[in-house]
Amino acid sequence: MNTPATADELRAQRKQEAARHAASFVEPGMVVGLGTGSTSAFFIDELGRRWNREGLRFKGIPTSERSAQQARELGIELTDFSEQTRIDLAVDGADEVLRGRLTLIKGLGGALLREKIVAHAADRFVVIVDDKKLVDKLGTTAPVPIEVTPFGWECAAERLGRLGARAPKPRMDRNGQLYVTDGGNMIIDCHFGPIEDPLYLFTEIAKIVGVIESGMFLDDVSEVLVATEHGIDRLTATERRV
Amino acid sequence: MNTPATADELRAQRKQEAARHAASFVEPGMVVGLGTGSTSAFFIDELGRRWNREGLRFKGIPTSERSAQQARELGIELTDFSEQTRIDLAVDGADEVLRGRLTLIKGLGGALLREKIVAHAADRFVVIVDDKKLVDKLGTTAPVPIEVTPFGWECAAERLGRLGARAPKPRMDRNGQLYVTDGGNMIIDCHFGPIEDPLYLFTEIAKIVGVIESGMFLDDVSEVLVATEHGIDRLTATERRV
Repeated sequence: MNTPATADELRAQRKQEAARHAASFVEPGMVVGLGTGSTSAFFIDELGRRWNREGLRFKGIPTSERSAQQARELGIELTDFSEQTRIDLAVDGADEVLRGRLTLIKGLGGALLREKIVAHAADRFVVIVDDKKLVDKLGTTAPVPIEVTPFGWECAAERLGRLGARAPKPRMDRNGQLYVTDGGNMIIDCHFGPIEDPLYLFTEIAKIVGVIESGMFLDDVSEVLVATEHGIDRLTATERRV
Repeated sequence: MNTPATADELRAQRKQEAARHAASFVEPGMVVGLGTGSTSAFFIDELGRRWNREGLRFKGIPTSERSAQQARELGIELTDFSEQTRIDLAVDGADEVLRGRLTLIKGLGGALLREKIVAHAADRFVVIVDDKKLVDKLGTTAPVPIEVTPFGWECAAERLGRLGARAPKPRMDRNGQLYVTDGGNMIIDCHFGPIEDPLYLFTEIAKIVGVIESGMFLDDVSEVLVATEHGIDRLTATERRV
């Protein structure tokens, strides 16, 4: 007897579809950036399936300890930047995607710096989301996570407040302890509300001394795969003569 | 019997003169940023003298463990950004100062990120140097130290190389071990040679993901005190109607 799928199950199914589509881009011998988060976990699972069932061989560069662990358990070979600085393809999720644009917010998972470094090192950076992540203005549903240096974070928080972040405070973990990134830094989740001018905000955030990186991705993304109830929408920057 | 002072002794004397002059700016109740390096050490010594002999009371915010230690030994009261985010006066040395400008390179001492955070939080940021630090082009005698995140430093180094840095490699300590900053990061000392366009280079460096901060100071400095054989030259940005 089939019970109707819940909203959560449907969403998980869509994330999985986007992940499967992205996994089909992986070819033998590639170096593949492995994102962090629930959608990336589906991607890594799918890569594990291709590794084990199809005998597909490639090397993964994980963006977090969590993703490294998952990939290792699936038997996927890992590499790092000491071995190569060029990544063929990186795949990761996002927290919000500006509808019809390659502009997004990510890093709520806490790995934003590594995710951005891997994205920048990749020839092709593919973002996979389900359609619940699409927004008409960034900042509508998600805060902008900003990685800051522990020394003087109070000064950075003050400046973020002046840029419109509401009560910027360092992220805490589930046990009420200060959240520390893999790089030993803090994250300030900044609730700006709907962002009118992402480039302006991005630039002003980047100017703050003590800010290591923000979770705004403005010109880093090659394509976005959006899983909808009707299938996968693929958004790329295409060029045509008019 | 007086033996003539050596060049090193003369230089130390000049640094001390600049340090003494800067220390005269400190007033009771101020919050004072304490730099790092040989000239800053003279400044902290002089502050210790004023603390102990004149009974001057203020609070210091150190830019490194080394400076904190020195200040503590002199009995100077320390504070940090958890107590206050506004600094009245910060004083620090530099590695190179562009002649006639408030533009400079610093951070060879390894505390560049903390130095920059303290400088930015200060109402007045005074740099003290002897005249050997003056150059007609930045990069002539000193490399640009750049603090980078350990994850993916290889990618950052590659990009710095493309910007003209010769063989960019992480700094090692005296024991041949990787140098680690107070913030847990690496430093890449970039030998660009004479820098024609500091603002362009600064901006391009800042764009590299994984770069936390560079040792180029372009618009952070209130004034520079240069100790010469003829006394102290004081360089400030002054405004006058013409």
